[in-house]
Formats: sequence, structure tokens, C-alpha cells
Amino acid sequence: VKLRELGEDRLIARLIRGLPLGPEVRVGPGDDCAVIGAPRAARWELLKTDAVVEGVHFEPGEKMERVGWKALCRALSDIAAMGGVPGHALITLAVPAEYEMEKLEALYRGLRKAARRFGVSIVGGETSRSPGPLFVSIALTGSVERDRCILRSGGQPGDALYVTGRLGGSRKGRHLDFVPRLEEARWLTSHAKLHAMMDISDGLGADLPRFAAASGCGYCIDQDTLPRTRGCSADEALNDGEDFELLFALPMKAREKLLGEWKRAFPRLPLTCIGLLLEPSPQLVAARSGGARLHGFDHFA
Amino acid sequence: VKLRELGEDRLIARLIRGLPLGPEVRVGPGDDCAVIGAPRAARWELLKTDAVVEGVHFEPGEKMERVGWKALCRALSDIAAMGGVPGHALITLAVPAEYEMEKLEALYRGLRKAARRFGVSIVGGETSRSPGPLFVSIALTGSVERDRCILRSGGQPGDALYVTGRLGGSRKGRHLDFVPRLEEARWLTSHAKLHAMMDISDGLGADLPRFAAASGCGYCIDQDTLPRTRGCSADEALNDGEDFELLFALPMKAREKLLGEWKRAFPRLPLTCIGLLLEPSPQLVAARSGGARLHGFDHFA
Repeated sequence: VKLRELGEDRLIARLIRGLPLGPEVRVGPGDDCAVIGAPRAARWELLKTDAVVEGVHFEPGEKMERVGWKALCRALSDIAAMGGVPGHALITLAVPAEYEMEKLEALYRGLRKAARRFGVSIVGGETSRSPGPLFVSIALTGSVERDRCILRSGGQPGDALYVTGRLGGSRKGRHLDFVPRLEEARWLTSHAKLHAMMDISDGLGADLPRFAAASGCGYCIDQDTLPRTRGCSADEALNDGEDFELLFALPMKAREKLLGEWKRAFPRLPLTCIGLLLEPSPQLVAARSGGARLHGFDHFA
Repeated sequence: VKLRELGEDRLIARLIRGLPLGPEVRVGPGDDCAVIGAPRAARWELLKTDAVVEGVHFEPGEKMERVGWKALCRALSDIAAMGGVPGHALITLAVPAEYEMEKLEALYRGLRKAARRFGVSIVGGETSRSPGPLFVSIALTGSVERDRCILRSGGQPGDALYVTGRLGGSRKGRHLDFVPRLEEARWLTSHAKLHAMMDISDGLGADLPRFAAASGCGYCIDQDTLPRTRGCSADEALNDGEDFELLFALPMKAREKLLGEWKRAFPRLPLTCIGLLLEPSPQLVAARSGGARLHGFDHFA
């Protein structure tokens, strides 16, 4: 079977079957980060890897400082999605032998800039030759207080679904200079009891079904309320991908208080209720999602 | 400047200049692993990444179970070189869309086999499309008791240099089924006060100069004593690379006791004194290294 036929989600489901997990693993594959620690420890450790590949996540002629920023911020966005604070990063490169040193130094300027801004130490890595494109893989650790660690799986039917910021249009450049929502996520976990959270990396159209499925819920969204980037259609807001905004589930009764406080804390960043988690029901999902196709970004489709 | 002209060591030296490091970073870039923890903590955390690339570290037609084994064991060898025990791994793949699912499943069989054998939990990862070859990047955590953590930099003039096992000939297949020296390294740190240790991944010819430089020492080796794999020349033993044996520096007075105990503990694995650390002196190194060229494996040369 070719990956093209299988698709990304089924590929991953097949690969992670039967992986060995020790008793200290709180969350294994499938959430934004892995979570490690004793069940009652005050803090848990977060582990994440992510990669950007030339020709897939950035074009060969791109400014490499922006690529470095993006590479680290993608992984930081996953730490944010757990409610965590970032720690230490390692950088793994596979580089064509004919590559220009100056471009790698620009990549590292972008990595250093993101590391300094978000308090990350870059503590090492590995460099290899690539017979193909440039490949940049980031390994990132973080940590989170146990009672502020937010998984994808805690959502309940009736929860309100919220997203930060605006969706769509990342391909016009925002995918290279987005700001991971670390500050906003920390604020959220100190101001409300979120039930579940993830970051939107493949587009709401791909990530919302995953989010609901992780909580064993269905969902409905109102397309007219989607906070779209100026000039984007509903289809683009759902399916462009690389938004790196937060999607979270909040108990209905906590809504009004949180929204008022949010507006004072982040007056320039919208926080929008886009729908609800429901009892699982595939028919309902199809009916409520209306005309636009929910697909998002599949690496192999 | 092209990487081909610069070479691997100078590339890395340029990239790691001025990286932000927090006060909890005991060892940053340059050793086998990064080391994180409070100065007086009982245990320190180890962080490592490593990658294998199709066409560089394995051939496209290779049995993928062996590639998976190799990928994880390379990183495990670096945990061993610090005296540590492995913890949690994340797997980052970039895969051509036309790749066969069955080959990825075989890769994961090899990863799982190594994980089970050495007590590692595979807790997640990331999958992306590759427009070029298959990339497999491993991020691995570990930990080590503070007083058993062995760096590259602790060697002193007069220390004896030892290697485990035999060198050379990895290209005939051993690079795909070597056993990382985790057990041996733990035994060594509980039976002797090692001054410095590393794993030999690019060949003794490349790694010994790095090892001595990290300790601010010169070195001499006796080529006739090099423990060679059967059928290998001294040149191959020095420069083939991918031996994944341990190289360590031991105070002279500890030699005899350790060697006797080693033979009882590991009767089938040689432990060989190959030379000495010296006061730094480039001339002496050149004179004592005799006829064979020391170069090892440079990814970009």
C-alpha cells in the first residue's frame, strides 16, 4: 500500500500500534505532546518533535531566517496546546553538500530569535548530509503543572468550542512569522477550567474532527462565525492549514466571564465561539458542517 | 561558502556560536548528549537527537527493520557514552508519498525491537511528506546519576585510552545490527572513575582528535594495538566509521584492577588500551600516528 492511498491519519494509527510505553508515560502518541511523569507529580514533562522540509513547508528561495523561526515556533505551538512552558531544543539537520553556509547561518538566526523570545535553550543537535532537500527537525522539551495540563481528550458534549485569532491565508506568508500562543494558553489555563485544547496546524477542517474524536464527541460549527483572515473564504479558513491558533473546549457556564477577561487581557486578538461539542453522531456532523468541505491538509493525499 | 569546502566540524562550530543557554544547562552542544539539571541534583537529564537518511546511512533496498534498529541504537549509543540510562523516544519521519506502507511498518518493527530491548518508551513523533529520500530522525531522553555522568572533557594528560570491542568493517553490515554499549558503560561507571568517555561514530580517526581536544589534551596511539575487526586494515579500523564502540580515558593507576574485572564481566568483548592522552602538542600527534591517515567520516568532505 502506498502512503498516498492510505492518508496521514491512518498511516499514523498503523505505526503507533503496540508501541512500548512505560508506567511513567501519562500520554503517548496522539496528543500535541507526549506527557511524562508520576501520576501525582506536581509537574509533568512534555516532549515534542516536528520537522520542516524544503519544498514542503517552505520554498527553496525562502529567507532562511523566517524558516528557522517557523521551525521552532511550530513545536512551541504544541507546547502551548498542552498549557506548558518550553524548555530545551535540539536541532537535527540533513543538508545538501552544495548548500551555502550563509543560508544555514540565517536559519540559525531565526532559530535563536525564536529561542530567545520564548525562553528556550538550544542545547545541541545533529548534522548529516542530505542527498535531497534540506530537512530541519526540532526536538523540544517543556513542562506543565499537572493541574494545568490540557489534553485533547477531555472535551464533553455541550462544551463550547473556541478558537484564538483568525483562520486561513497562512500561505500568503503568515506560516513563516506566526506567534505561537504560549502566553495566551498560559493565561487561559490560569483563568478557566478548559476541558480540552489543541493547536490548529493542519486546518480546522482536519483538526476539529481529530479533536472531537479524541474526546469521543461529535461537533457542530457555525461557518458564519468562523474568524477569517481578511480576504479569506470559509473554505480557506477551514482548510488552508498552518494557522497555529488554539482550539479549545470550555464548559458553557464559564463562557461569559472568560470572554470579558480575555478582551481586557488580549484586546487585539479575537477569541471566538465557533460551535459545540455534541454526543457522537456522524449524520449530525455532516448536516451541520453545511456546504464547505472539511478536509484540511493531508501530507500524503 | 559551500559546506563541502567547510567540513562538518567547522560547520557545527559556526552554527553553535551564541546559542541561548539557561542556567540549568550543564552541558550544551558538543558532547554526546546535552545535560540538563540543577548543579547539585542527584540525577541529570540527557537529551539527544540523531538522524538516518536514505542513501547516506542506509541504501534504498535495505531491510527496513534493520534500519529502524540502527536509527534508535545510534541515539542509544550516545546515552551510553554519557554513562546514562535511556528514557523516551520520539520518531520524526519525512516520507515520499509513493513509499510503501509495509516498509514503514518494517522500520517500526526495528524501532520497537530496539526500544523493548533497551527499555525505551516510544511516546510519539511527527510524520511529513518528503520530496526526496526517507528521513528518520530520533529524539531520545535519558538520565544519569550526577556522579556517574561522564563527559568528553574530563581527560587528563597521562590517562590511558581504551576502546571496547573491535573497530572497522561496519560497512559490511555491522552498522545495521550493532549493540549500543549501554550495559558496558553502566558497568564501567560503577567499577572505575572514568575521566572522559564518548562513542566512536565517525571512526576513531575523526573522533579521537575531537575527544582529546575536548579535554585540552594531545594523544598518541599505537596502531599495532588497535582491536581490528577480522579482515580489516589499520586504515579501515581508524576511518570506516559507525563502530559505535566506547572510547574512554582512565587514570593509569586504575588500569589493572579494571581490566581483570572486565574480563570476568564481559569475557567475549575485548577492552583494549590503544594509547595515552598527552600534554597538547600537534607535532607529537603527527609523529606518533605513524603512516595511516586519521580522517574518519566527514559528512560534507
